[in-house]
Amino acid sequence: MAEPFDALELIKLKRDGGTLSPAAIDWLISRYASGTVADEQMAAMAMAVFFHGLNGAELSAWTTAMINTGDRMDFSGLDRPTVDKHSTGGVGDKITLPLAPLVAACGLAVPQLSGRGLGHTGGTLDKLEAIPGWRATLTNEAMLRQLTEVGAVICAAGSGLAPADRKLYALRDVTGTVESIPLIASSIMSKKIAEGTGALVLDVKTGSGAFITDLDRSRQLARTMVGLGADAGLPTVALVTDMATPLGRAAGNAVEVAESIEVLAGGGPADVVELTLALAREMLALAGRDTVDPADVLASGRAMDVWRTMIAAQGGDPDAPLPRPRTTEQVVADQDGYLSRLDALPVGVAAWRLGAGRARKEDPVQAAAGVLMHAKPGDPIAAGQPLFTLQTDHPDLIPRAVAALDGAWAVSDHPPSAGPLIIDRID
Amino acid sequence: MAEPFDALELIKLKRDGGTLSPAAIDWLISRYASGTVADEQMAAMAMAVFFHGLNGAELSAWTTAMINTGDRMDFSGLDRPTVDKHSTGGVGDKITLPLAPLVAACGLAVPQLSGRGLGHTGGTLDKLEAIPGWRATLTNEAMLRQLTEVGAVICAAGSGLAPADRKLYALRDVTGTVESIPLIASSIMSKKIAEGTGALVLDVKTGSGAFITDLDRSRQLARTMVGLGADAGLPTVALVTDMATPLGRAAGNAVEVAESIEVLAGGGPADVVELTLALAREMLALAGRDTVDPADVLASGRAMDVWRTMIAAQGGDPDAPLPRPRTTEQVVADQDGYLSRLDALPVGVAAWRLGAGRARKEDPVQAAAGVLMHAKPGDPIAAGQPLFTLQTDHPDLIPRAVAALDGAWAVSDHPPSAGPLIIDRID
Repeated sequence: MAEPFDALELIKLKRDGGTLSPAAIDWLISRYASGTVADEQMAAMAMAVFFHGLNGAELSAWTTAMINTGDRMDFSGLDRPTVDKHSTGGVGDKITLPLAPLVAACGLAVPQLSGRGLGHTGGTLDKLEAIPGWRATLTNEAMLRQLTEVGAVICAAGSGLAPADRKLYALRDVTGTVESIPLIASSIMSKKIAEGTGALVLDVKTGSGAFITDLDRSRQLARTMVGLGADAGLPTVALVTDMATPLGRAAGNAVEVAESIEVLAGGGPADVVELTLALAREMLALAGRDTVDPADVLASGRAMDVWRTMIAAQGGDPDAPLPRPRTTEQVVADQDGYLSRLDALPVGVAAWRLGAGRARKEDPVQAAAGVLMHAKPGDPIAAGQPLFTLQTDHPDLIPRAVAALDGAWAVSDHPPSAGPLIIDRID
Repeated sequence: MAEPFDALELIKLKRDGGTLSPAAIDWLISRYASGTVADEQMAAMAMAVFFHGLNGAELSAWTTAMINTGDRMDFSGLDRPTVDKHSTGGVGDKITLPLAPLVAACGLAVPQLSGRGLGHTGGTLDKLEAIPGWRATLTNEAMLRQLTEVGAVICAAGSGLAPADRKLYALRDVTGTVESIPLIASSIMSKKIAEGTGALVLDVKTGSGAFITDLDRSRQLARTMVGLGADAGLPTVALVTDMATPLGRAAGNAVEVAESIEVLAGGGPADVVELTLALAREMLALAGRDTVDPADVLASGRAMDVWRTMIAAQGGDPDAPLPRPRTTEQVVADQDGYLSRLDALPVGVAAWRLGAGRARKEDPVQAAAGVLMHAKPGDPIAAGQPLFTLQTDHPDLIPRAVAALDGAWAVSDHPPSAGPLIIDRID
């Protein structure tokens, strides 16, 4: 049977600023997934989309087409509403770890399909794998059972969800076409829609440590994704949140698990607590449970109970000591004053270089590697006081991590004025 | 050894409007030729170049890098100056056939490395292969010998000249990145510079039957190529010529050989004669032989002598009857008046559909297929008079060829005003 479309003609149409029909997009994505449309053709198309974008109808069709290349999960048999959270990724962003058990403790089911880190942003699964025995991979049946019995599951997304996205993401990664708002939005939303969650809260990061550093573009990405959720009948809200400064006081794997446990125990850094509660309130509101105050539930210890059960359900020992690094190194302040700036990107790069992250998908990560931050912007500091502790199993990785931190912070005579952590809300 | 550049970073640089260094371009092209840079990366780069172009230094480096992936020929041992002509391709463009022997008869050596047709524009080698026995492929030694002894050779370019261009052209052909002036210019000029000709005259076509239909863009392509010639120390002149109307009265293979022989015999269509002489004068001027009048040489019959020797040197029989088609079909005028318009593109498509051209590189062509035009714009016509004779060996190809001609011409009450054949000259 003759093909109804021709990849070359579709590339030229988009290249010249035209609009692709839903049928053409469905054909393109399905044939790309099956291999009929070649990688070099999809690379040219992705670059043409980088320049011309996708309009609302194209973007909706593109997302649907990616979903249609794979399976869709279904949580409608659960006795509780499901709600998921997705972050576009940042430095020290461990929010999923306290958030999922907290929201489950509030009575919802949280099917948190997560990924691994690449580059300077950490991956939720990498962090949890620092817990001895914990397994990221679950069958769909095990996932459903855990959702029913525990209410929260954080696990690896199966390869059956939007496989075209998996293939296209790997292609974009080597062809300079990652930084395209419609392609980012459709990549995220295709997986979340295919996952079958009943509602979705997005944490769109903005600032130096974020995937998108510019606030206007972050807002645009948030609006685009919220629109795609609406198109697909998935209630979606986005918070645009600051990632100019790292979240919390730890960036790495085991160090972020430890900080998350502090939050679940009622302590932890104020910014991590603030964002965890804000996202929990949005999730509860979307599920119609806004009479529950997650701050009360956190204080009650019930979120910690769910955490322990959730970790144990996936083979992890919640009481086991977390891995400790073989080497640590401190970076100290060279003057008195107030920490006026702490850039997320160099802190993320330092943690990455210490072994907490990976340069290539197939690289392993070190559980104990990372950066502890002993001061955050606004804190008074004294010359000689430790600002960072660098942790790694490989001492030879220290110098380049220290170099990454060069210029990453500033000291002033007066406390800096602090901007809001939650910059915007889009629904 | 670590690579000095990273393809992804170079793609992003060009994507974001930056400038690639000569060293980066040399690395990119050489690694693409050797396979280290993947097709999908080069496709993304080509699309980024489509949008942002290449500046003069980038374009010169790109062209040099393509030349450096292969061999360079050397004609400096010949006792005569060499000069070559390149046309960007059109419908009925058989000019190389009378031009090469004419310029050789004027005392120059013409090393005409030619290509095959693809799509609606014919290929010089396809046309000459209609002559029984004629061979397109020569060794470099045989080519040099023929240039010495005959003065003119029209043959296939060896695969050793700018192999990166061959690979890149095939990629552009499937990724919607053919229509980029810097990529077109560097593709043409890399082969001509590597070929080692002493001077070059370009025939840049413009109008419906040309590769580039817009006059401003055709001029821009001409200027770009003339500039690349200057950068490489290759004296280059370009004529921008009309391709809104087919050249001559025949489009196909054997039919164009026959028309070329008419020109060499002192007859032939006025436009073919005009353009042949104009290009010959430019070639002679570049070689410092502008005291020779090619019209005199054409009238003397010496160009026909060179033609016969040239054809025979490559195994062809200049006296053998040319192939005749199994079927012909006529299209007749439906009213009296003057032919006011004859579009090149549909005539080229009709010849192509009759079997004179190919849709894919590996397809064969029919020697006898083509279109004869019995009227050109300005000619008086009468209802019922034949306008076209369609020729093919496969009668089932006729209907779609006739359909291609629908709307291809117009009739008016008064003779149309004729535009110039040679629109511009760029040196």
